[in-house]
Amino acid sequence: MDCPTDNAEVNLKRAVARIEKLAKKGAQIICMPELFQTRYFCQKEDKELLGLAEKVPGSTTRLLGYIAKKHKVVIVASLYEEHAGHHFNTVAVIDADGKFLGKYRKMHIPDDLKNYYGEAFYFEKGDLGFKTFKTKYATIGTLVCWDQWFPEAARATAKKGAEIIFYPTSIGYQLVDKYGIAEDEHVAWQTIQNSHAIANNVFIAACNRVGLEDKLNFWGTSFVCDPFGRVLAKAPVDAEADLIVDCDLSLIPQMRNDWPFLDYQKELKKHHKKNVYEV
Amino acid sequence: MDCPTDNAEVNLKRAVARIEKLAKKGAQIICMPELFQTRYFCQKEDKELLGLAEKVPGSTTRLLGYIAKKHKVVIVASLYEEHAGHHFNTVAVIDADGKFLGKYRKMHIPDDLKNYYGEAFYFEKGDLGFKTFKTKYATIGTLVCWDQWFPEAARATAKKGAEIIFYPTSIGYQLVDKYGIAEDEHVAWQTIQNSHAIANNVFIAACNRVGLEDKLNFWGTSFVCDPFGRVLAKAPVDAEADLIVDCDLSLIPQMRNDWPFLDYQKELKKHHKKNVYEV
Repeated sequence: MDCPTDNAEVNLKRAVARIEKLAKKGAQIICMPELFQTRYFCQKEDKELLGLAEKVPGSTTRLLGYIAKKHKVVIVASLYEEHAGHHFNTVAVIDADGKFLGKYRKMHIPDDLKNYYGEAFYFEKGDLGFKTFKTKYATIGTLVCWDQWFPEAARATAKKGAEIIFYPTSIGYQLVDKYGIAEDEHVAWQTIQNSHAIANNVFIAACNRVGLEDKLNFWGTSFVCDPFGRVLAKAPVDAEADLIVDCDLSLIPQMRNDWPFLDYQKELKKHHKKNVYEV
Repeated sequence: MDCPTDNAEVNLKRAVARIEKLAKKGAQIICMPELFQTRYFCQKEDKELLGLAEKVPGSTTRLLGYIAKKHKVVIVASLYEEHAGHHFNTVAVIDADGKFLGKYRKMHIPDDLKNYYGEAFYFEKGDLGFKTFKTKYATIGTLVCWDQWFPEAARATAKKGAEIIFYPTSIGYQLVDKYGIAEDEHVAWQTIQNSHAIANNVFIAACNRVGLEDKLNFWGTSFVCDPFGRVLAKAPVDAEADLIVDCDLSLIPQMRNDWPFLDYQKELKKHHKKNVYEV
């Protein structure tokens, strides 16, 4: 999605319309980009914007719960959360019966105002640990944007049983490419997420913001890749898109049989018949 | 390198000739593939072959030390080690003055005889932890083949100060591609190693065996990539090659300034001026 307006109500309505359209096309688990109700406000520091934060669960999750139940879809929604005076970059997961399943609070907070990712002003580090949610269609994990650069986050989430890890994301090009590395950063972003799929034998679904907002040109290219890191579908760099992607979850155990990277010590013990001591 | 003969003495001589040639061309740190003195014997289980193991340090490291000192090059050598009745898949690092700097013992041992990587018969899990070595030209880490699939190994090695991580490797195609995934596995191998470079802001140098041996067709394609995961040079899939690659180590701190993935908590504290508590 892009975010052409500051009006959260309008943005939420647009998202709901997209969700309903996707549900009718057969989507089962629907993810929106990071903080989809607002423009990416972390490009500057403004105390007033702390007021954008909402309760989770709260009015937005109630609305999304109604939509989820109506269409029997799971919804993964990135929300700006306020809780007892603390602020978090949160993901809410709503099951296909409309129930609020739980939330994850972003663990890796970029503190990089000079490059227009000044999130430490708005969000504390998450305090819920890494999370998975057993939904109607799959056990999913949720991580958020900067988490995607940290293999530990994907590993911990996969260890908890995730079959698909969703990454609501807001990442883009700097308008001024000082070092000539803009495209290299974009390629690195794809590479590292493909690698999480490989290292953990899971599907990865990254849902990124698109379009120009102030000093950042969000690079879209939302994608889904399979446990071999093969990109199954990818959105354009400069336009909104609906990606509906079949994920054959039986590929996960099949791959783990030959490449047991997630829990190789266990596999080693299970398969081990002889070792040098017994020779 | 390929390995056309079972004769370890001949293979070592070939390696030494290659090292001397590379040194004359200006190479500073020289790495050979995994277990370069022998054909990849882990395709079957044979007690006799346990006798191939040698002391580390021992006669091979003494010879390599002489060559290293003569040409002022660092040598990274993968050796089959026996120590007090225990067997390890070991890397020895020899500094440019010929001194034995230390060794690393492979931590992730594939136990996959059905796919011709039956290493658990020949090697115990390494007991030295992850290692780095401060050589004349760079602080380097060493990991071995299957370690390359595990982000933890690269992370731990980078945390100990590695600027370049060397991976002596023996990986290849199965002769029978049952699932039609041979090339996907090869691409995944490249992807995950590029991702270690990105996640840890380090250079990666993978040095792989090449050529057909029994049931495995080793896929060569040794490469060096920079901290953005950009492949700087790559060997062919089906032939030996000498890769001499300039690694500009100043790229590491430059990249860590914007992408402090290795120790982001420290960076967060260092740069943090305000947070929501202080607002």
